[in-house]
Amino acid sequence: MVNVGIIGAGRIGRVHVESICTQVANAKVKMLADPFMTEETAAWAKDMGVAGVTKDYKEILADPEIDAVLICSSTDTHSPISVEAIHAGKHVFCEKPIDHDVEKIQEVIEALKNSNVKYQVGFNRRFDHNFEAVWAAVAQGKIGDPQIIKVTSRDPKPPCAEYVKVSGGMFLDMTIHDFDMVRFLAGCNAEEVYVQAAVLVDPAIGEAGDVDTAVITLKMENGAIAVIDNSRKAVYGYDQRAEVFGSAGMVATSNDTSSLAVISNAEGVTGEKPLYFFLERYMAAYAKEIKCFIEAIEKDTETPLGVMDGLEPVLMGLAAKKSFEEHRPVKISELRK
Amino acid sequence: MVNVGIIGAGRIGRVHVESICTQVANAKVKMLADPFMTEETAAWAKDMGVAGVTKDYKEILADPEIDAVLICSSTDTHSPISVEAIHAGKHVFCEKPIDHDVEKIQEVIEALKNSNVKYQVGFNRRFDHNFEAVWAAVAQGKIGDPQIIKVTSRDPKPPCAEYVKVSGGMFLDMTIHDFDMVRFLAGCNAEEVYVQAAVLVDPAIGEAGDVDTAVITLKMENGAIAVIDNSRKAVYGYDQRAEVFGSAGMVATSNDTSSLAVISNAEGVTGEKPLYFFLERYMAAYAKEIKCFIEAIEKDTETPLGVMDGLEPVLMGLAAKKSFEEHRPVKISELRK
Amino acid sequence: MVNVGIIGAGRIGRVHVESICTQVANAKVKMLADPFMTEETAAWAKDMGVAGVTKDYKEILADPEIDAVLICSSTDTHSPISVEAIHAGKHVFCEKPIDHDVEKIQEVIEALKNSNVKYQVGFNRRFDHNFEAVWAAVAQGKIGDPQIIKVTSRDPKPPCAEYVKVSGGMFLDMTIHDFDMVRFLAGCNAEEVYVQAAVLVDPAIGEAGDVDTAVITLKMENGAIAVIDNSRKAVYGYDQRAEVFGSAGMVATSNDTSSLAVISNAEGVTGEKPLYFFLERYMAAYAKEIKCFIEAIEKDTETPLGVMDGLEPVLMGLAAKKSFEEHRPVKISELRK
Amino acid sequence: MVNVGIIGAGRIGRVHVESICTQVANAKVKMLADPFMTEETAAWAKDMGVAGVTKDYKEILADPEIDAVLICSSTDTHSPISVEAIHAGKHVFCEKPIDHDVEKIQEVIEALKNSNVKYQVGFNRRFDHNFEAVWAAVAQGKIGDPQIIKVTSRDPKPPCAEYVKVSGGMFLDMTIHDFDMVRFLAGCNAEEVYVQAAVLVDPAIGEAGDVDTAVITLKMENGAIAVIDNSRKAVYGYDQRAEVFGSAGMVATSNDTSSLAVISNAEGVTGEKPLYFFLERYMAAYAKEIKCFIEAIEKDTETPLGVMDGLEPVLMGLAAKKSFEEHRPVKISELRK
Repeated sequence: MVNVGIIGAGRIGRVHVESICTQVANAKVKMLADPFMTEETAAWAKDMGVAGVTKDYKEILADPEIDAVLICSSTDTHSPISVEAIHAGKHVFCEKPIDHDVEKIQEVIEALKNSNVKYQVGFNRRFDHNFEAVWAAVAQGKIGDPQIIKVTSRDPKPPCAEYVKVSGGMFLDMTIHDFDMVRFLAGCNAEEVYVQAAVLVDPAIGEAGDVDTAVITLKMENGAIAVIDNSRKAVYGYDQRAEVFGSAGMVATSNDTSSLAVISNAEGVTGEKPLYFFLERYMAAYAKEIKCFIEAIEKDTETPLGVMDGLEPVLMGLAAKKSFEEHRPVKISELRK
Repeated sequence: MVNVGIIGAGRIGRVHVESICTQVANAKVKMLADPFMTEETAAWAKDMGVAGVTKDYKEILADPEIDAVLICSSTDTHSPISVEAIHAGKHVFCEKPIDHDVEKIQEVIEALKNSNVKYQVGFNRRFDHNFEAVWAAVAQGKIGDPQIIKVTSRDPKPPCAEYVKVSGGMFLDMTIHDFDMVRFLAGCNAEEVYVQAAVLVDPAIGEAGDVDTAVITLKMENGAIAVIDNSRKAVYGYDQRAEVFGSAGMVATSNDTSSLAVISNAEGVTGEKPLYFFLERYMAAYAKEIKCFIEAIEKDTETPLGVMDGLEPVLMGLAAKKSFEEHRPVKISELRK
Repeated sequence: MVNVGIIGAGRIGRVHVESICTQVANAKVKMLADPFMTEETAAWAKDMGVAGVTKDYKEILADPEIDAVLICSSTDTHSPISVEAIHAGKHVFCEKPIDHDVEKIQEVIEALKNSNVKYQVGFNRRFDHNFEAVWAAVAQGKIGDPQIIKVTSRDPKPPCAEYVKVSGGMFLDMTIHDFDMVRFLAGCNAEEVYVQAAVLVDPAIGEAGDVDTAVITLKMENGAIAVIDNSRKAVYGYDQRAEVFGSAGMVATSNDTSSLAVISNAEGVTGEKPLYFFLERYMAAYAKEIKCFIEAIEKDTETPLGVMDGLEPVLMGLAAKKSFEEHRPVKISELRK
Repeated sequence: MVNVGIIGAGRIGRVHVESICTQVANAKVKMLADPFMTEETAAWAKDMGVAGVTKDYKEILADPEIDAVLICSSTDTHSPISVEAIHAGKHVFCEKPIDHDVEKIQEVIEALKNSNVKYQVGFNRRFDHNFEAVWAAVAQGKIGDPQIIKVTSRDPKPPCAEYVKVSGGMFLDMTIHDFDMVRFLAGCNAEEVYVQAAVLVDPAIGEAGDVDTAVITLKMENGAIAVIDNSRKAVYGYDQRAEVFGSAGMVATSNDTSSLAVISNAEGVTGEKPLYFFLERYMAAYAKEIKCFIEAIEKDTETPLGVMDGLEPVLMGLAAKKSFEEHRPVKISELRK
């Protein structure tokens, strides 16, 4: 049985509490920490079966019975708490991104050297049944050598301008998941990025210094070309698709829906929209990534997504930003220190 | 080059004129006959490239240059003109049904004995690309032994009560195509029929002594069970599907649409309705059946649908009628003479 | 919080233990009873959070802290334990069928009179997301008046002959779920049943006195015609579909798959097979039916599936059996006492 | 009745002969010209109903009874024959591209000034039922303002190196159709092009100085971002899809297949591959573009695709070439004279 401490009781922290309490047989949430811990949250946690709550995450790090921590706090705390937790000998599951600053990620990489700590980054989409099946088809050679990789990733509604300002920009906030997906499906790192982006959804996003629509082309190290298209607003719901085209075929996936019911009438033949947003679409994936993390601890194996998998998408995001600003293709190597 | 005479310039006669003039390279329409031949029809025929028109179909039978006739006149004339044409040594393509009366069909069968005439019945759906592909999968053993055969056949709008009265009833007018389809896909004759039917679309159809909705179960000679569902009114268009389930798998087909465009919006994900009715859905099939008829003449081979293929669906229709009237399963053998 | 006792620790009993322990927040399994309770099962139950185990279900009925029982024991015990539990004042969730004998079900109906006990029958498919969506479309009038209802229900592999002998026959063992589905989608009872059935899958099933392939036609009280097709062996997996055709349109559902990945290669365009069998397809439905049962207790409302919903499919199954034996349409009223 | 002369009896010239002879009621092929006119071709043409053949296309231009010419000769002759035909007062349908050299196209534009000649360029895909439906959805505002336009265009097999050398390169030979499609769906011109391309299919193509795989990003004048992905070899057949994402929804189309039959077996659920190549996929589109050309002549209206629609995709192709060579985004304005 793995004892877990969860740092951060926001939306994603609570998702992990629920997953562990109901779906991960061999783990227990021993403590949930949040600086703004309310009585409601404490009561909810108790109800879910969490043993204790605290306002101070350092209590979790100090608890010798806790084996592993999940870092679900605000992005700027991910890397320092990662380092602290590693030094405290806790296995770490860290929400994405580790940091927007490559040097901060380097500090985590340093801390991991000579430690026996397991480290996993929270790119949940790799654990989605559809993307896993696409990946498996590629990995099993069913489509031959990958040549063109396409990822569509569109949110159902744009974030507010306040959020946009502190988000690090669309490429580091939203596309970062797609950068990870491209690496996952290609089976290698990106070499170069080119961005064509615009503000087409909400002028307030532009005023906040960001974009809301983009097509991003990538050259991968294995020679494949990848392309991501992003929008902050798809009126029909969360659109998350992938297609890998290769020398021996193509594999593609469409969106999950709440049912397969299709109505035929005088207007046409109508099926359901994609599931609304990430909480609807990826709930099972969130549980699965934690199961894999716990399993890596128990079996003393590599986690499926190590710290380098946390670094690369950030480099890709920074390169994308630079490509947009300088209106030219940017090599990832320009961003490596 | 095969010279063809077409008897009947109604809707289906004109479809065949068009097919032959534009799509059948090795046939020519030498004469088009219709007792109500108008100047407009004659002008249209000339325009299409038809050599001559007449009000008297006997002119066609008497013309030594005409090799084959297409009988597209009213149902009650199909069998007598068939017999006349056979005696005149013309190859015959006869629209379905040959007759509603089994004895009349027997007369055609008799006439064909000791003749060298090719005879083909107009069950056009066998030549539809979708049903052909279903049939091919079955014939090639891809689904093993057929066990359950399902045919859905629904018209987009009911006929008027006037038509219903002279139609011979839904089973002989509409379901007859589905009876043929069941034989085609099963690869054998039916042994027994049971009908559950009702008037759910239009009370006027009931007043005319007919039904408009039915589910018809059949036991086939090879042991498979077949089921047909019919409605005279599908608001979403002409619904023509088939499914064959067998010991090694299943093959099924859905409906053709005018395009594959799909719109995703806040209401759902909407594709096009099925093509509206038989003229839209089966235009290519009408041309193909004539091509096959002409080919059978040129190559002196069997037509794909002989006179016995005209008889069996009529027997099935008569059995269905009896089943409905007597509310019991009826053996086809009860109808055979 | 509702305290539950579960009677029967076989496959389905364990499914309910798991559902309640992990997904039903407001219920607890206080005791699990099974005459063949093993140490392994007891250990597993403890692990899941079940408070106690016993070999004697009467302990559950005698426990004043237990509010509700789930009867998951062998079919022949469903009705007597139902009656006992009702007399003990326990709310009852009873697996299908209540009994194959209508008189036994009548005893349960009698016991329920003048009691305040909630009674629910385990027709889990009503809680499947796909069938719920089909039902909702019908209930909301989206397809107008139902006219033709089609249910396809095919198992991936046939049961062994031993099981067949004690199963009550395919109509009461397997089709009973489809009879319930037809009532659910039609919104009314059946009036008449006609069966065309055969042994096409496994001769041993025929030797055991049963059939393995059937098409069953039903006339519903609202005038709609329903048709069920069954096979004990679909090589491509568990095939569970429904289609309702009505005056204003059609709603249909296909099968869930483990992913939406589709591979295009030189052989064709291939998606995944349906989920293998009921444990894969209906896991969420099993949890949902229990949630609804618990909710009906907590809110003191009607359960979604009362004892009469347990009776009707049994009558339909008995009528189907009679129809097959006597080779004629059988009215449900012939079976009512 | 419009009298047509066809210049060039190669593959596409013969496609147009067939279309006009069988499907375009109000046009006749009066003469077919080809410098390598063989007896076989002459016989075939006669059989199809073509009045005369010649080795010298100037006979066509000199024939006062011929109203319109179709230029289907080799690419380098398109612009000079266009100019000659315009001066001869013939309406012109010219296969794509008019020329690879912008100045040559300018000469055609000049020749058209002050003439009454109709001019149409052969971008046949605009007349495909699927792309027409996508375009119609956009044009009718069903998806709001277009924001992201995606075109997939992959050939089933690569051309031989000989062909590649004289083809003008993939962007002017193959992608040119996709550039037209992007303009068609966006409803405006492109502003900028960026290419990421590679040789992944056949090294011989690289040795011939060309690429075989590409992702091309475009900024359109209306602000939308477009992306084309190309491959010279899709093992599953001709892959021609489009998707337009906008402020109010998305419209997308998949590929036509030879039938809708789907086989379910132990391996999965398999439908047919896309139609093999352009002759299979676009046969109806080829006929429709000619019908529209003839109609524009008869009704004295604008052709659907004028000379400027011939110029723009060439500019886009040249910009793409430059982008690939200089590895940077290239503005279309850099290519305009």
